[in-house]
Amino acid sequence: MRVFLNGRFVPEEQASVSVFDRGFLYGDGLFETMRVLHGHPFRWEQHLDRLERGAHFLRLPVPYLPEQLRQFASQLLSEHPGFDGLLRLTVSRGVGRRGYSPAGADHPTVVMALHPLAVAPASGRAPRWKLRAASIRLPAGEPLAQFKTCNKLAQILARAEADAAEADEALLLNTDGFVVEGATSNLFWVEDGRICTPPLASGILAGVTRSVVMELCRSQGIPAMEQNTTIKDLQACQGVFLSLSSYGVVAADSLDGVGLCQSELPLKLAELYEELLRNECGK
Amino acid sequence: MRVFLNGRFVPEEQASVSVFDRGFLYGDGLFETMRVLHGHPFRWEQHLDRLERGAHFLRLPVPYLPEQLRQFASQLLSEHPGFDGLLRLTVSRGVGRRGYSPAGADHPTVVMALHPLAVAPASGRAPRWKLRAASIRLPAGEPLAQFKTCNKLAQILARAEADAAEADEALLLNTDGFVVEGATSNLFWVEDGRICTPPLASGILAGVTRSVVMELCRSQGIPAMEQNTTIKDLQACQGVFLSLSSYGVVAADSLDGVGLCQSELPLKLAELYEELLRNECGK
Repeated sequence: MRVFLNGRFVPEEQASVSVFDRGFLYGDGLFETMRVLHGHPFRWEQHLDRLERGAHFLRLPVPYLPEQLRQFASQLLSEHPGFDGLLRLTVSRGVGRRGYSPAGADHPTVVMALHPLAVAPASGRAPRWKLRAASIRLPAGEPLAQFKTCNKLAQILARAEADAAEADEALLLNTDGFVVEGATSNLFWVEDGRICTPPLASGILAGVTRSVVMELCRSQGIPAMEQNTTIKDLQACQGVFLSLSSYGVVAADSLDGVGLCQSELPLKLAELYEELLRNECGK
Repeated sequence: MRVFLNGRFVPEEQASVSVFDRGFLYGDGLFETMRVLHGHPFRWEQHLDRLERGAHFLRLPVPYLPEQLRQFASQLLSEHPGFDGLLRLTVSRGVGRRGYSPAGADHPTVVMALHPLAVAPASGRAPRWKLRAASIRLPAGEPLAQFKTCNKLAQILARAEADAAEADEALLLNTDGFVVEGATSNLFWVEDGRICTPPLASGILAGVTRSVVMELCRSQGIPAMEQNTTIKDLQACQGVFLSLSSYGVVAADSLDGVGLCQSELPLKLAELYEELLRNECGK
């Protein structure tokens, strides 16, 4: 597969950046991972919007207009007709002077690459994930958390713990003691027939799939609200599920070994999400 | 200049890593920046010790023994007899599968590069830095903070604010409201003739130069202790200074525009540090 790198399309084994790129030195960059179906990236505009807000926050000038990036993405996807998988777009601050100051780093690095879905969508039966609470905490209210930055060590450590426990996903608590998100997903649960999710102000990613779920709830008249939660509350509620670009909506089976209630709502939302995905990326 | 990259010495313009290296994707790595004088890295063992502790914490297996790394560093330095500057050693987790899980990323990337000192040491008069408090907060008690990880966006944002205010260094507060460290330095101040510095448990880097300053205080009989502080307390104390590998000990001139008291102790410690550096890296 070829990779888009700073305006060129190169074979992936030649897609490299300088060891002095600030993305490699400091994680000084942002990324977006989008689901692609039938060769169409799902919710491109929302992903680009988050990228641009993050770039503004980091004062990292993306060197292409959104329309140009869209065109490069289309060109990359045109090499794999009907592609079904993921597109990752990365923007790092590129090479600058030594040290943390971004002054003089005026040539950001832009990469786009295609990836297969990790697991083929389960045929017939929807997957249910085992969740594991991570020991590392996220800083409550952290402003950087809302963007998909290239600083992901907390998520990596959480995920490694989940791997060791043979869980499918890690749940992270923040420093206030609330469970706020998954390592690679946003968190939802069912309570009194309502859908609940932690507020963005708790220091979490403003997930694109999270906002699609909220949109689906509104359109279906399902009451949804933002609130805080704990491990104990989740273990006792009527159902837990996650939202993430790569899988859409995934119901949770257990949390720290405790079996979770299975509401019909997560399965209904998963179906609605798949329908929306197919409609918007329809041929 | 040549760069050490995974066992080879390559011209710097050819020193590159895959766009799929987890260092570039997620900042999944560690680094050390060491002062080099007369071709000798200062406190190599202490830096390597911190690197190894960080690698253990991240479960990132450094693919060379400390003695091998030392030998590669010597080989790199031998190309520049009498080198005076900085050596940066970076270890990233290398290329793995897509996603946060480190599973399968079994070939870490190791880079060593030499850099000149940003500014020639002031001749005659020691520099005094203008400090600026950053708006972004560090998570109090964060266990990752003690290592020099490649997740440095908070420090970059802090530094960019300091640049905009024409300050020389940013000071960071933690989420408990205490001033805990500089973006690229550890913080010290003078209070009642004693040297004070925030405790490691406040969520700061376990700086090698910080520990050298503590060592100098002990050897000189200067009382030193760990405690918390605030902007107001610093502005009213008898002197503020910073420790960092690249400059050693640097006295602060002002904090957020407020002139700081000038104790003799920081200048004495700066001299003692320089003396130690010259002795240990003597020809």
